[in-house]
Amino acid sequence: MQDNLIYFFNPQGVAVIGASSNSSKLSHGILKNLINYGWVGKVYPVNPSSSQILGLTCYPSIKNVPDPLDLAVIILPAKMIPNVLEDCGKRGVRAVIVISGGFREIGEEGLALENECLNIIRNYGIRMIGPNCVGTMNMLNGLNTTFIRGMPARGGIGFLSQSGAVCGGIVDHVVKKGLGFSHFISLGNELDVNETDIIEFLAEDNETRVIAAYVESIFNGQHFLKVCQQVSRIKPIIIIKAGRTSEGAKAVSSHTGALAGEQQAYSAAFKQAGLIEVNTVEDLLNVAMTLDLCPLPLGNRAAIVTNAGGPAALASDHLADCGISLAQIDAQTKSELRKVLVEAAQIENPIDMLGAADADEYGFTLKHILEDKGIDFAIPILVPQALVDPSNVAKSIAEQSAKKSKPVISCLMGNESIHSARLILLDGGVPVVDYPEKIGICAGSLYKYSIWKRTGRSDKIIALSVDKEQASALLMSLEGNKFGERYTRPLLYAYGIPVVPGGFAKTKQDAIKLANRIKYPIVLKVMSEEILHKSEVKGVILNINNEEDLLQSWDELNNRLIKYSDKVKIDGFMVESMAQPGQEVIVGMKRDPNFGGVLMFGMGGVVVEVFKDVAFRIAPLTELDAYEMLQETKAFQLLKGFRSNPAVDIDAVVDCLLRLSQLSVDFPEIEEIEINPFMVYSEGALALDCRMILN
Amino acid sequence: MQDNLIYFFNPQGVAVIGASSNSSKLSHGILKNLINYGWVGKVYPVNPSSSQILGLTCYPSIKNVPDPLDLAVIILPAKMIPNVLEDCGKRGVRAVIVISGGFREIGEEGLALENECLNIIRNYGIRMIGPNCVGTMNMLNGLNTTFIRGMPARGGIGFLSQSGAVCGGIVDHVVKKGLGFSHFISLGNELDVNETDIIEFLAEDNETRVIAAYVESIFNGQHFLKVCQQVSRIKPIIIIKAGRTSEGAKAVSSHTGALAGEQQAYSAAFKQAGLIEVNTVEDLLNVAMTLDLCPLPLGNRAAIVTNAGGPAALASDHLADCGISLAQIDAQTKSELRKVLVEAAQIENPIDMLGAADADEYGFTLKHILEDKGIDFAIPILVPQALVDPSNVAKSIAEQSAKKSKPVISCLMGNESIHSARLILLDGGVPVVDYPEKIGICAGSLYKYSIWKRTGRSDKIIALSVDKEQASALLMSLEGNKFGERYTRPLLYAYGIPVVPGGFAKTKQDAIKLANRIKYPIVLKVMSEEILHKSEVKGVILNINNEEDLLQSWDELNNRLIKYSDKVKIDGFMVESMAQPGQEVIVGMKRDPNFGGVLMFGMGGVVVEVFKDVAFRIAPLTELDAYEMLQETKAFQLLKGFRSNPAVDIDAVVDCLLRLSQLSVDFPEIEEIEINPFMVYSEGALALDCRMILN
Repeated sequence: MQDNLIYFFNPQGVAVIGASSNSSKLSHGILKNLINYGWVGKVYPVNPSSSQILGLTCYPSIKNVPDPLDLAVIILPAKMIPNVLEDCGKRGVRAVIVISGGFREIGEEGLALENECLNIIRNYGIRMIGPNCVGTMNMLNGLNTTFIRGMPARGGIGFLSQSGAVCGGIVDHVVKKGLGFSHFISLGNELDVNETDIIEFLAEDNETRVIAAYVESIFNGQHFLKVCQQVSRIKPIIIIKAGRTSEGAKAVSSHTGALAGEQQAYSAAFKQAGLIEVNTVEDLLNVAMTLDLCPLPLGNRAAIVTNAGGPAALASDHLADCGISLAQIDAQTKSELRKVLVEAAQIENPIDMLGAADADEYGFTLKHILEDKGIDFAIPILVPQALVDPSNVAKSIAEQSAKKSKPVISCLMGNESIHSARLILLDGGVPVVDYPEKIGICAGSLYKYSIWKRTGRSDKIIALSVDKEQASALLMSLEGNKFGERYTRPLLYAYGIPVVPGGFAKTKQDAIKLANRIKYPIVLKVMSEEILHKSEVKGVILNINNEEDLLQSWDELNNRLIKYSDKVKIDGFMVESMAQPGQEVIVGMKRDPNFGGVLMFGMGGVVVEVFKDVAFRIAPLTELDAYEMLQETKAFQLLKGFRSNPAVDIDAVVDCLLRLSQLSVDFPEIEEIEINPFMVYSEGALALDCRMILN
Repeated sequence: MQDNLIYFFNPQGVAVIGASSNSSKLSHGILKNLINYGWVGKVYPVNPSSSQILGLTCYPSIKNVPDPLDLAVIILPAKMIPNVLEDCGKRGVRAVIVISGGFREIGEEGLALENECLNIIRNYGIRMIGPNCVGTMNMLNGLNTTFIRGMPARGGIGFLSQSGAVCGGIVDHVVKKGLGFSHFISLGNELDVNETDIIEFLAEDNETRVIAAYVESIFNGQHFLKVCQQVSRIKPIIIIKAGRTSEGAKAVSSHTGALAGEQQAYSAAFKQAGLIEVNTVEDLLNVAMTLDLCPLPLGNRAAIVTNAGGPAALASDHLADCGISLAQIDAQTKSELRKVLVEAAQIENPIDMLGAADADEYGFTLKHILEDKGIDFAIPILVPQALVDPSNVAKSIAEQSAKKSKPVISCLMGNESIHSARLILLDGGVPVVDYPEKIGICAGSLYKYSIWKRTGRSDKIIALSVDKEQASALLMSLEGNKFGERYTRPLLYAYGIPVVPGGFAKTKQDAIKLANRIKYPIVLKVMSEEILHKSEVKGVILNINNEEDLLQSWDELNNRLIKYSDKVKIDGFMVESMAQPGQEVIVGMKRDPNFGGVLMFGMGGVVVEVFKDVAFRIAPLTELDAYEMLQETKAFQLLKGFRSNPAVDIDAVVDCLLRLSQLSVDFPEIEEIEINPFMVYSEGALALDCRMILN
């Protein structure tokens, strides 16, 4: 699908437009990098004021560059770039990387320049990475279009970044540490090629076994979600999202509105797409390394093999935090270990071979651990000791790891004395971290991805039977944008969501008629456009048992609201059946500018506000998505039945979420909708109150 | 208070008993380290089979070693050590470090050997570090009694560890990175000198500005707590506790019992003692570095100064996670920055000077930031760039940092190209981390400690007026160990905790008398030693309004329990006033083997089980401790008044916690006690149900 991106990574000929002979210029650095890292294709510096740079013939213009030529790397003042792009188009260049800044990031003027550029490349069918990026690296063929110092080792991680600096920082971190990459892509302003395009490209790239991404925002949320859902079934995608901004204390009209912020939409999308979200760049690298090098585990039971108890204790804590448990070592395995390890060694898990443990002991113990059917992961930990050579231990670990199909994740706790041991492990396909606490997230993410791969997920959205025409007519008839129960109820009803019996009454006569129809006891609620929280104005009377009560309550509510009469116009009253107590939950939807409808589920009552125990997913939801939302909350325990409280009808909540999802897809004009409370019973459920906002 | 520990760190003469001439032996390594790191005092190898090792005269026995001699480092087979200690005693040695293992860690036999050693050292007044440790390092005088390769730089961090391997791993990590330590102490089995002794010693050591500790268990919890409370007022203590073991699904009799595990006791003690608890060794080092080098901030407003947006976004996220907010840059500061920074630079916080920012721009911007009264922290971030020398930027940062009394915490995102820049920063007193995400915990911990220092904390425990004699008599009269409401109520009452009016009735006549005294409506509850959860056997009837109801309910409860009659013996019934609804909370105490009484506070209802929103502190509590417990829970929002729910009597909860604390101190035989629910009203509160376990 992203075939034409190949010209960025495997071009026939590369021109550097703006290449300088001055070694203090970035463009000179790019030329150097193109020469120094093994790229054997043609490189053409373009600069009217030089005839030769770094031993290469320099051309006055792109027009003069000979064939073959697919790719141009451009580093020139921003305002010159449209003309250069025209020349590139005429010359038949297929792809351009624009390193230069000075575009939308500087404001209006820059944005206009970008639009000009976009028209030109669209016109010629050129693909562009950038502007305002640091370029690309292809570790396979040595094509390095950046000015970054150094280039990582070759490996299976394809990395893309919306921050050029993060690219630079990572290279500086990993360059001598052996961590292997296939591609490194700085995306810049994403005028043309964006994160989703690159993910599609890397998905099809055979060298790339894992995709790692640093993002600050996603261009087209729904498209990103769909692409990643497909890709993550083939290879894992690890992602870090910067800018988890605080939404602050905005005035909001519903819990869904308050809680469903931008970051929630991102995290929900990442979950639905099977992405592995991490919080730090270091975790991004360690988890990517693990998923690149390790086979998937069959379970979550790990055995630690160590030469020291303290680091093993730290590792155990963090493994447990990440859902990995310590395996029971089989009696047979233990008796084998007992034969060889020193007497004082601990052969329970963590297996502590003590400080003097050497390469043979590591090898022997790992061999037996990897053969033990009760163990899914092996975790060798080495703290450098005066009398043991870490490189020999590393060789032993790599040798055992190579023989088996179980993941081995190692920790060499140190820096100074373990450089070569580290490279031996990575060469041998064993991920290695430098502190025991970092093993947890690696093992946990690997296990999580194994479950994602195993779970047979369908992305088929089942169309439920709803009365879309009726809903459409209702929405067409509305004026204004905020609506309470009166106008939201019929919409829910049209979409098959169970609503408490009742209706709107403008007069006492209406109310009596309604009450007789739905039967006493009833509830009377004041309806006014100005009242957002009925309970705060005491605008509800419960348990009305007969007509006399009803008339009295009607007057009572009118009296209560007299003090607000200046500000509040009473439209009438809702007359509804008094519902039985059940489990209160909240179900809602808020539209996100990037991703569309974001569904929310959470516990009702004060719990939602105090504990924020809520879950989000992007519409449209599959049944599994809806079910996983429920499972993700702590409140799920209550739904399943807890102590003397019986289980409630979980399917009724799932059904409601699916219908709300369909409603949000069918009517993009619904900005926000919330059912609170949605009362769930041992059989069935009822929407007791609801509201919505249209755009 | 730990004066005699000085012989470990500043001895007149050091003997190495068991020193070997074989360079592959650890004892040889120790001798080498004693020679190689600047220690100028006398060193005496002791070994009957050599006359000279590494150019030093070797003595056949400790008896032959000449004066001066204070310290002996012993590395010999365990069983030889008692005799050697006798010799040391006779020779007048003041302190011994026993490196050898083979003691309690191998079982009974080793434990017996330890006891033998303990008698000897007590007899001679010798202090011992170890056995089974890796020794000590004093960075000030170069005294290194370990066999670890390398020695950290000199600085203000005093580090102690219950794991020798963690010492080794840390040295390997920091040895060339410039992180400075005063002392490094491996504690081993702590036969004599333990973690609290060393903390006391480091507290009085002028070179040590910060104490960092790795612990797996604390020897005497109450003593540790008292010492740390004093020390943390003088200098910060940062701690990592390994082995946060899962308590598993034990059968437990109360929420307090279920939730107050060993780890909760530790974390509570750490909070009360003002310790800064971290979860990873890397955080331990980074936070210690920050607290060593930085002045305390006046507030939590940080300004980021960066050459790249992405890393600044990551830093902002993690600063926010740790309670640090981004400052508003003053208009005056902004106009100064605008004059000098490039036009495209962002002068809002984070201040992004863009990729080409050089040392002058860093210096200029930092100068103005540090002068801005609205800013408490400056956070310079540098991602290495092709054309900027990180060392020059580091010099600029260090220069600005040296002029001002505000904390400056820096990040050099990289490794390969920033080694010397890193050393320049540390030399200049500026903490530096290698990823932007690591700034958060450093700044957050510094701010947290500044609050701890500023808060005028009294450790005075106020003795409340209670009837201790009455309580004592009650406890003496009890047989068995598990008690429900009947026997727990009078104990609470004696300690001044308000209990719902009522009493125990064995006959209907008793019940009627009681009910008339306390007035209807009343509650009837079945009492039986075999019933732990009354609600599960439906053993409670509420809202009994008159004598007829009471008699009927009495029979009804008896009938309900017939089905359990084989297993359950009904002792009688509690007759109690029907309490008004209020805010339900749980207050409890569980005794921890290390720390004594651990008080718990949490929300009542299902919330405590689902959300585990509870807080713990060690008895005895100060009023501030009790208040902070409440504040620590999310439920505190509900107590303060939330939406239409009014505030409740927080003082009544604090008072209850203080009384329970006093009860737990006065009667160590109380193993566990819980009030659930403790119903809190807008004025006052009532214990509605309670239970306890005695040992």
